[in-house]
Amino acid sequence: MTCYADLVLLLGNATAADYICNKFTDANSAINNTYLLFSAYFVFIMRCGFAMLCTGAVQKKNAIRTMLANVVNLTVATISYYMFGFAFAFGQPSNKLIGKHFFALKDIPSESTGFDYSNFLYQWAFAIAVAGITSGSIAERTRIFAYAICSLFLTGFVYPVLSHWYWSPDGWANPSRAPGVSLFFNSGVIDFSGSGVVHMVGGIAGFWGALIEGPRIIRRFGDRRNKPRGHNKTLLVLGTLLLWFGWYGFNPGSFLIINKTYGPSRSFYGQWSAIGRTAVTTTLSASAAGVTMLVAKKLLTGAWGLADVCNGVLGGFAAITSGCSVVEPGAAIICGIISALILIGLNMLSEIFKFDDPLEAAQVHGGCGAWGILFTSLFAKKEFVNEVFGERPDSRPHGLFMGGGGKLFAAHIVAILVNIGWVSVTMAPLFLLLKYLDLLRVCREDEREEEDVARHRRINSHR
Amino acid sequence: MTCYADLVLLLGNATAADYICNKFTDANSAINNTYLLFSAYFVFIMRCGFAMLCTGAVQKKNAIRTMLANVVNLTVATISYYMFGFAFAFGQPSNKLIGKHFFALKDIPSESTGFDYSNFLYQWAFAIAVAGITSGSIAERTRIFAYAICSLFLTGFVYPVLSHWYWSPDGWANPSRAPGVSLFFNSGVIDFSGSGVVHMVGGIAGFWGALIEGPRIIRRFGDRRNKPRGHNKTLLVLGTLLLWFGWYGFNPGSFLIINKTYGPSRSFYGQWSAIGRTAVTTTLSASAAGVTMLVAKKLLTGAWGLADVCNGVLGGFAAITSGCSVVEPGAAIICGIISALILIGLNMLSEIFKFDDPLEAAQVHGGCGAWGILFTSLFAKKEFVNEVFGERPDSRPHGLFMGGGGKLFAAHIVAILVNIGWVSVTMAPLFLLLKYLDLLRVCREDEREEEDVARHRRINSHR
Amino acid sequence: MTCYADLVLLLGNATAADYICNKFTDANSAINNTYLLFSAYFVFIMRCGFAMLCTGAVQKKNAIRTMLANVVNLTVATISYYMFGFAFAFGQPSNKLIGKHFFALKDIPSESTGFDYSNFLYQWAFAIAVAGITSGSIAERTRIFAYAICSLFLTGFVYPVLSHWYWSPDGWANPSRAPGVSLFFNSGVIDFSGSGVVHMVGGIAGFWGALIEGPRIIRRFGDRRNKPRGHNKTLLVLGTLLLWFGWYGFNPGSFLIINKTYGPSRSFYGQWSAIGRTAVTTTLSASAAGVTMLVAKKLLTGAWGLADVCNGVLGGFAAITSGCSVVEPGAAIICGIISALILIGLNMLSEIFKFDDPLEAAQVHGGCGAWGILFTSLFAKKEFVNEVFGERPDSRPHGLFMGGGGKLFAAHIVAILVNIGWVSVTMAPLFLLLKYLDLLRVCREDEREEEDVARHRRINSHR
Repeated sequence: MTCYADLVLLLGNATAADYICNKFTDANSAINNTYLLFSAYFVFIMRCGFAMLCTGAVQKKNAIRTMLANVVNLTVATISYYMFGFAFAFGQPSNKLIGKHFFALKDIPSESTGFDYSNFLYQWAFAIAVAGITSGSIAERTRIFAYAICSLFLTGFVYPVLSHWYWSPDGWANPSRAPGVSLFFNSGVIDFSGSGVVHMVGGIAGFWGALIEGPRIIRRFGDRRNKPRGHNKTLLVLGTLLLWFGWYGFNPGSFLIINKTYGPSRSFYGQWSAIGRTAVTTTLSASAAGVTMLVAKKLLTGAWGLADVCNGVLGGFAAITSGCSVVEPGAAIICGIISALILIGLNMLSEIFKFDDPLEAAQVHGGCGAWGILFTSLFAKKEFVNEVFGERPDSRPHGLFMGGGGKLFAAHIVAILVNIGWVSVTMAPLFLLLKYLDLLRVCREDEREEEDVARHRRINSHR
Repeated sequence: MTCYADLVLLLGNATAADYICNKFTDANSAINNTYLLFSAYFVFIMRCGFAMLCTGAVQKKNAIRTMLANVVNLTVATISYYMFGFAFAFGQPSNKLIGKHFFALKDIPSESTGFDYSNFLYQWAFAIAVAGITSGSIAERTRIFAYAICSLFLTGFVYPVLSHWYWSPDGWANPSRAPGVSLFFNSGVIDFSGSGVVHMVGGIAGFWGALIEGPRIIRRFGDRRNKPRGHNKTLLVLGTLLLWFGWYGFNPGSFLIINKTYGPSRSFYGQWSAIGRTAVTTTLSASAAGVTMLVAKKLLTGAWGLADVCNGVLGGFAAITSGCSVVEPGAAIICGIISALILIGLNMLSEIFKFDDPLEAAQVHGGCGAWGILFTSLFAKKEFVNEVFGERPDSRPHGLFMGGGGKLFAAHIVAILVNIGWVSVTMAPLFLLLKYLDLLRVCREDEREEEDVARHRRINSHR
Repeated sequence: MTCYADLVLLLGNATAADYICNKFTDANSAINNTYLLFSAYFVFIMRCGFAMLCTGAVQKKNAIRTMLANVVNLTVATISYYMFGFAFAFGQPSNKLIGKHFFALKDIPSESTGFDYSNFLYQWAFAIAVAGITSGSIAERTRIFAYAICSLFLTGFVYPVLSHWYWSPDGWANPSRAPGVSLFFNSGVIDFSGSGVVHMVGGIAGFWGALIEGPRIIRRFGDRRNKPRGHNKTLLVLGTLLLWFGWYGFNPGSFLIINKTYGPSRSFYGQWSAIGRTAVTTTLSASAAGVTMLVAKKLLTGAWGLADVCNGVLGGFAAITSGCSVVEPGAAIICGIISALILIGLNMLSEIFKFDDPLEAAQVHGGCGAWGILFTSLFAKKEFVNEVFGERPDSRPHGLFMGGGGKLFAAHIVAILVNIGWVSVTMAPLFLLLKYLDLLRVCREDEREEEDVARHRRINSHR
């Protein structure tokens, strides 16, 4: 559109201007869809990484059950997000609270909203990640049926509604809204790739699941020697590195389009630069968190800890996911260092309060995710916020430590509380209901004995 | 070309029009090659997924042999496809039956045919997938030498000739041919990414291999408790998810180019949209098949089955691969559900007829692949067929259930028979010859005892 | 710039020419950054492949230590390359020997040099690969602390300086320099993706490490039955195939930009074709090396060897990495065949000289890497060298066997010696210092007994 308006004046030839601009539009569609689709595929591989991580982190006897839970979760969540989830999240036109179009992809591709199939695919890959996080917290004691129900509800309703609030153009907390009375704290919430929308949601849902189910039978708190350990550290490392790989789809991919200039006169610098910077901040936060965890654990316990470093890296990723696009690389290192310290603290607390999460998913994704939201409100740089979320006539709130005032900070504090509140009022009752109906936890005998061996030998013998 | 013709009229300036159009051509080449090359890389990772799947599905004692078979297969097939395969498949100019140029990549890149190195790489990645499928069926009892011969012949001749028929511009069954006497059923066969060309070929070759070799010694039919089980379910899941990841190169990648408009006036919608839709149909079919298999097996046997769900997912993929680009997402769900049911049925039959395929590769790829060909002829949507294969002055045959008449259905029935026939008359004699020369199967003692341990300890001690 | 200069003449309209050319510049930035970023991500996954390969190739008791070394190595190297490495390698303006800007990414993105964040990310992924190679040679007996120090120094200084020499526009051996007195042998060194810069560096560093540490205690030379074997061949294959996958980012990605024409009149053929050809040569060399190793080992020992084939494939990759962009596909097959033979020879020598490298990393990356440098100077084709490194008024030196004279050959002989020299004078003293300070090797008891079990049980009990 702009191209035509500009070029028709310059060339004084309407059909030529139209022709040339259409060619550019086509090329842009091809470039941007290539970028978005491959990003979506990368986000998908995170699901593979998470399945490996989960499997490695559980006891051997629960490995098959854990993998089955992951596959069930993935396939059920796919159908659920296709039928309802995407519609609740991004259906347009909508209101501030929930989307109400695009059920089962009706009216997609939609020229008026700009949503093509690639947008659905990208959002779907995010949705299945959420359910994956939660499944880690409740591993080793939950029924397959309960996993399926949780996935269905989480990816079909809880997550989509929250993602609507922050990411849909209509959502009440979207920072791209026009400034004025309808804009939350005159700022909106900057949760670029979802430290809150994805990681806190998965982590808090996992927190309630793990709390309501209670610890695994064999779990003895306080006695470090008795802590059940994952049966396969190789899978832990494979999973962590596949997640790292996929995170390059998750964070830089969230720009959705790559061909966009920032200002007419500086064509070397554009959204592609911001995308590259996002990949760099993502990498640095994870690495800094890994190194911090390595050193801290050595100082605290006298020994190196492989699983700790892996979880540290993941915590660094979960934290930077909110601010990845609007902070300087140096700030990302601070983000990573503090994530690792927060993770250590939360793990100590969970030991004290006898909270048992086999993958530390509530701590890593919930805890570090919340820190990420806070971090963004402290370190978001004005120039970057304007580029990513749109220039505004008034001065846009940005990071407290970057001279941007307290509005973004206030908005982000509220966002953290809102995330906790929404997931709690939806997921806790579901887990309680499943518990009440005795559908949540495997029976005591099954959990105690070599259930996998027992049950799955039976399964196989029944084939 | 079109660009120049159009723009020279509009601008009234031949050199300027030429200059601008050349710039667009360059950009398009860059975009399309980026898209095609990364798609090829994704198809390659399927080979890794298949190696993991195979290894996980065999007994522990055969793990090393199975992996060696996979690596041999991959490297031998690469050389074979480079020397002969690509030439037989896409060598141009050619005739309806077989290609006869481009041996060892002579004359590539070829401006007249539009084939660049990226096209070869993409087709190569498909060729190595075919041999991978077959190696699953004959696992646990076949000599490495026999694997090498089969790969050589399958990827150097059998598969290329068949792919020429359906996919080369000259092939007799290509649906892009001009309508008229030379067009098969005035329709051609829509096997977009190769439910037939790739999956049926691999599956049927595997069927003959498994049949001619006979079942593994330890295989007792009827007695479910005695069925040999894969030694590592984690590899099964890892393999399945890597295959899922790679399938996004396999199906959406088969468009080959992403920058293509569908009609001049609607530039939001183009081949990029069709590519996104293809990724979505692929995802939905696999997920629907996985869920169906999960529920069906639970109802049939009373227990959940992880390996079954994984195979169900793969069956869903194999089936949608033919019609992925020309059906609605909703139809893809039907495709997946029925694939799972077909797979269950075929597995029952194979039990009855004492057919032993350790990976169920004949059933998954052969059976569900054949269903996929049929499915396309029922659900292909007219609008999509026209977009993907080119508008035609007459009404193009499309899906029987979409009001497209019986021509496509008839053509697809013939295609299934042709696929079965061609692979049978080429591969069955090869397996029989190898058997007759006593080169096919490992000796009875080797198979019975812990051969891997025995032989490979020897191997290693000889290094 | 060129676009504007050309188009303003053709259109006779400065603002229109400027407008249209800016649009092309933006589209090109988007395309090229998409290409480069995804290539970088692919190079990253090689780090995952290498971690799996390493873990599979060590004894079970050292698996956890090996993985920890890999993760430490990766995170420490990341911080190191961000702080210093990238600045030493590519900081501009600089001199022939070392870069001196861009510390901690200061002044990036830099319009004058054309370096954007994506360039950093791509180079970072290379840097972490170098440290990964070295860690293989010193596996099973090195302290975690020593790994961290080596990574820091190797990726922060040794590798960056060498990469400056060959790859920075200012580097003394860069073949893109203007011809004349300042150009090394009037030719420069063609090490396109780093057979020397990456693989020889990693391999020679590993050689010194392994030599200075001495063999593992359990290693008995001559007695083949006693050779310690990797505990998990599946990880070996997984690692090899992930490295294969990632190599498509490593070699074709080294073009950095994909939208570039080769000559104005032939727009079908451009850098995208050269990129495709590079992917093909890479694939063929690896496959030819794998097949050669398979056959040679069978002839030499009477048995098939899976680990040998995997290492053969990797040797084929390491060798083609230098010349991948400037040789014909047929030459790549020769490259691969000879790599395999060289690897066999070096392994025999290492047995005779009692040199113990658990991953054969010095042989694979050092030996085959050196062969790759030589190979390029024999087979580089004039046309390709001109396209990739820029046309020159005089006749550019190219492959000796391609009629290009002896200058390139001489330059490459010197390059091999320079690589060996530089890495030796920097890394050998570091290993000696660490040994002198008793920080290099784990204590004898730890190495002899089931150290992993012992130490890491302690680690875990301390959590």
